[in-house]
Amino acid sequence: MRKLVGRNFARLRREKGVTQEDLAVRSGFSQQYLSGLEHGKRNPTIVTLYLLAQALDVDHVDLVRSDSQDS
Amino acid sequence: MRKLVGRNFARLRREKGVTQEDLAVRSGFSQQYLSGLEHGKRNPTIVTLYLLAQALDVDHVDLVRSDSQDS
Repeated sequence: MRKLVGRNFARLRREKGVTQEDLAVRSGFSQQYLSGLEHGKRNPTIVTLYLLAQALDVDHVDLVRSDSQDS
Repeated sequence: MRKLVGRNFARLRREKGVTQEDLAVRSGFSQQYLSGLEHGKRNPTIVTLYLLAQALDVDHVDLVRSDSQDS
């Protein structure tokens, strides 16, 4: 699940053309946290998941939606 | 987000005709935890969210899907 959320977050962030650094400034999450998240190393709570989705201006459901590499 | 996940979990559990007690035995989560979850008082991590979905035999996306009372 960590890897799935990480892949979704990285893909959506790139689709939005936003760097981790930009997002860190905008969201209040550290760039290290975002990098760890994208590498499947974080285990955010559902509240943090919602805040991350808001920072990226996406629906929180899109962060947990299964993708082809579902693991 | 906590309330949304709680409402979704409670609704899906009832649709499956499973009591909190049955689910507690089956899942390893305490009945108190499940009750708190359904009342929007828990803030599970995404890994716990996945385990909860497995215990209920539903897709984890269904636990975070927005509903009409979305709050």
